[in-house]
Amino acid sequence: MSKVDIGKKILTANEQYALANSRLLAEQKKLCLNFISSPGSGKTTILAKTIRDLAGKIRIGVIEGDIQTDIDAQRIMASGAPAVQINTNGACHLSASQVSSALESLPLRNLDLIFIENVGNLVCPTAFELGESFKVVVLSVAEGDDKPAKYPAIFAKSRVLLINKIDLPASQIDFDIEKVKAETRKLNHGIEIFPISARTGEGMNEWYEWLLNTAKQLV
Amino acid sequence: MSKVDIGKKILTANEQYALANSRLLAEQKKLCLNFISSPGSGKTTILAKTIRDLAGKIRIGVIEGDIQTDIDAQRIMASGAPAVQINTNGACHLSASQVSSALESLPLRNLDLIFIENVGNLVCPTAFELGESFKVVVLSVAEGDDKPAKYPAIFAKSRVLLINKIDLPASQIDFDIEKVKAETRKLNHGIEIFPISARTGEGMNEWYEWLLNTAKQLV
Repeated sequence: MSKVDIGKKILTANEQYALANSRLLAEQKKLCLNFISSPGSGKTTILAKTIRDLAGKIRIGVIEGDIQTDIDAQRIMASGAPAVQINTNGACHLSASQVSSALESLPLRNLDLIFIENVGNLVCPTAFELGESFKVVVLSVAEGDDKPAKYPAIFAKSRVLLINKIDLPASQIDFDIEKVKAETRKLNHGIEIFPISARTGEGMNEWYEWLLNTAKQLV
Repeated sequence: MSKVDIGKKILTANEQYALANSRLLAEQKKLCLNFISSPGSGKTTILAKTIRDLAGKIRIGVIEGDIQTDIDAQRIMASGAPAVQINTNGACHLSASQVSSALESLPLRNLDLIFIENVGNLVCPTAFELGESFKVVVLSVAEGDDKPAKYPAIFAKSRVLLINKIDLPASQIDFDIEKVKAETRKLNHGIEIFPISARTGEGMNEWYEWLLNTAKQLV
């Protein structure tokens, strides 16, 4: 007589790939961060600057997700890190199976930290686990301070919030940073929040410190 | 013997609702614009300013799409126009059936122009026709000038591109407006492009002129 274990959760194909990615990264002790934001919040600029500034301190590889073009992977490689471009050809988010293939193309053994730059979209990528260690949500001050209230899911699920472009003149921007911090913490008590400007470098050291400490804890 | 008409295109449920909305709007000679952009490009600010500045010249109603909250509908109603809020509860785009219900809630006979503000997302809303007359894509200069190349579908399908926040200081923004115009026109030869600042009012008159002329042609 065969026995069916009805207590066992049936995984979707995406969840199965995500679980396999997560196991691979855990076995090899790699920190993997999935960056999610709207188009134009500055993800690629943040990653390229982080790679340049942390050269010699931590070995970083990047998986670039875009609907079309390899503009972002080119920018990352120019900063000195290996990068793999995934083109989703219209799809609004990366899938765990795409990340699984990309992980095979990266020189994983020579890396400590993997950045995944998801497709620019504050909504859909939130619902697809990739097997990452943590999600990082990026919000540019130019986008306005009502975004945690209007798009709560990603603010609730992320380990880190990077508030970017803080060099833009406050007089021309409707952005109350204390409101954003308070509304984000209402959704996610333990989230780390770093106000930064990837352009001027302001605030980046606190972000680097968190990154290096978090990667060290895995080793 | 029954006969199957294999030449007839089978419409999806969304396409059927979109067709019904389109017929209703055409019969009643209403111009209906579907605004699509990333979160924080300034859609609501543009709509609220347009409503205030064109008061007495054209009668505008608004359908507001958001994942959660009625922040945007409140802002629109404060500007003096009737507004209906649709909350998608997590969905990344408006559907034509939601717009169909919203059109029933608006005082349609007393309006000339309907603005639909889609969910903040440059990707998914592009694929769902709502029955609108035209799509309008909004791009803020803070988002960067590579967006037509990276998200071509919405630039190819739109009747108008509004390039917003042109008051932000050029020295702090990587945005070559001529490059954006050229790349957009490569995808869409006939698109109207208006560089504007909904904050300072710069460039808004050209947009208003297009809006009033286009609405007039329907009557």
